[in-house]
Amino acid sequence: MTPSFDAKMKSLKDMVVERMFQAVPSENPVTLYEPIRYAIASGGKRLRPVLLLLVCEATGGRPEDALDAAVALELVHNFTLVHDDIMDNDDLRRGKETVHKKWDRNVAILSGDALLVLAYSMLHRRSHNRLAQVLDDFSRGILQVCEGQTLDKEFESRKDVTLAEYFDMIDKKTAELFSVACHVGSVLGGGTAEQMAAMRIYGKKLGRAFQIQDDLLDVIAEENVLGKDIGSDLEANKKTFLVVHALQHSDDRQKKQLQAILHKGKVTTDDVRAVIDLFKQTKTLDAARLEVDTCLQDAKKALLPLPDNSARLQLGELIDLVAGRNS
Amino acid sequence: MTPSFDAKMKSLKDMVVERMFQAVPSENPVTLYEPIRYAIASGGKRLRPVLLLLVCEATGGRPEDALDAAVALELVHNFTLVHDDIMDNDDLRRGKETVHKKWDRNVAILSGDALLVLAYSMLHRRSHNRLAQVLDDFSRGILQVCEGQTLDKEFESRKDVTLAEYFDMIDKKTAELFSVACHVGSVLGGGTAEQMAAMRIYGKKLGRAFQIQDDLLDVIAEENVLGKDIGSDLEANKKTFLVVHALQHSDDRQKKQLQAILHKGKVTTDDVRAVIDLFKQTKTLDAARLEVDTCLQDAKKALLPLPDNSARLQLGELIDLVAGRNS
Repeated sequence: MTPSFDAKMKSLKDMVVERMFQAVPSENPVTLYEPIRYAIASGGKRLRPVLLLLVCEATGGRPEDALDAAVALELVHNFTLVHDDIMDNDDLRRGKETVHKKWDRNVAILSGDALLVLAYSMLHRRSHNRLAQVLDDFSRGILQVCEGQTLDKEFESRKDVTLAEYFDMIDKKTAELFSVACHVGSVLGGGTAEQMAAMRIYGKKLGRAFQIQDDLLDVIAEENVLGKDIGSDLEANKKTFLVVHALQHSDDRQKKQLQAILHKGKVTTDDVRAVIDLFKQTKTLDAARLEVDTCLQDAKKALLPLPDNSARLQLGELIDLVAGRNS
Repeated sequence: MTPSFDAKMKSLKDMVVERMFQAVPSENPVTLYEPIRYAIASGGKRLRPVLLLLVCEATGGRPEDALDAAVALELVHNFTLVHDDIMDNDDLRRGKETVHKKWDRNVAILSGDALLVLAYSMLHRRSHNRLAQVLDDFSRGILQVCEGQTLDKEFESRKDVTLAEYFDMIDKKTAELFSVACHVGSVLGGGTAEQMAAMRIYGKKLGRAFQIQDDLLDVIAEENVLGKDIGSDLEANKKTFLVVHALQHSDDRQKKQLQAILHKGKVTTDDVRAVIDLFKQTKTLDAARLEVDTCLQDAKKALLPLPDNSARLQLGELIDLVAGRNS
């Protein structure tokens, strides 16, 4: 990463965070708006809104013109996190208590709902001739996220999930919002039809790589520090790329061993080690790395129709960031 | 009710229901879209969308032009019901199992979320020059509903809720969507600024009357059949008009008796009878009736700026329907 890339990321992120807090009413009831401010303060790279702003700039617009949409997207993302944490019964997110844990489940349901409404409010704050198109992109995208989360939960009680089904699930649950970010960015930037289509692909491929890299990093991190992420995913019988690939490429003995651990309900560090070993035996880690690389190469190709400018370069650097990310 | 009024209500309701089912994708995942179709099939008077269509007509538009908005509003209403039923732990709605009971809590969270997104999708299906205004009305309204539900839950653990706080809560939780219905109807009907302002008031007053009438009907029904509604509201320590008014107008002995029942957690039919008796002693039932009448008179006055047409007459008949409703 070049210093100018880091500075650019930080400046876009700061713009988003500042405006995002302005979008949340400061008044009563506090048990609605305080949890919302808590949820959106929890940090992260703000990758989705930054992508939206960068693509807007790369296709000829000014980031300021896309700021409301970028903030809306980050609010949508936070809405999904608050509700997903209830459904997954997760007590921690980025080291802090989740909303339903810190307050209660009802507060988390309502603040998630209100986050979604605040996102739409941000989106239609100003009337412009591309409003209906942008709204359409958002609503289709959020509906896909709901579908993806539904599939993710369905898969927890299924043994026979295929890689094709896994890709369909993460494309909806994760890649879709990246795709919306990049497409809306190009719509608001005034990109050509070819550029807009390419940006959908760029976002989708980047998002897919991001999710598989996420599954992979959990395991790699696990080899040093036996944290709780992979353990709790195994306990919930979550169908990650790794689990699905390993099941499809196991012999009968390996499959039996893996299924037994997935159905234990409570896994030990020995179980985690055994699973990582199975991942290696079935060449699952290599397959995941290959899938990430392929997606990122596709994402890189999708940048070709963009004009040659610094924002395009930064979109390329974002690919490298996902490739080598360590958080 | 005149026969032509009943026929009109039925024809508008049928329009809404038919289009509403078209708005829900029929494909996978079934554990998302089947609960949604189940939730919206549960019937009811469809009062909010019918109001929107009638006001559109009364202010000079055609109901067809407001149909998408009317359907959107009914979807929003159903979103709130699905999520409220989780929060209130209600197993039944209109005699049928609630979504979280028939499926599970996660399914209910996700199908509620998707209902809200489908509502917005319906709203921005077509681009028109009043789109941003209509969206703004909706988003402000839904946010108020979230605030109202937050207050409703907060009040369950409070002893000192005043009537002013109660009105603020039901204005947000219930009356607001009636108000949005009527205002958006007048916006899409092309009403004058005066008519639009009057329609906000008409909706708000009608909605307030509707909610208090609801509290009242539970008790009146209770005198014949000791159903579960009032019992479960008392068990949850819900702050209805009746409870708040009775607490404010009780002497020390009465207040102590009522508070004791509200904090029992489990009430008997004798408790319910005792509470109804307290309502009578404190003239609470009369006060509720008076409040309903006053609101409905205000609603009637708000119809004056409308042109003299059959839709306006029907808006008047809707007032009579709320006044005398027995369901």
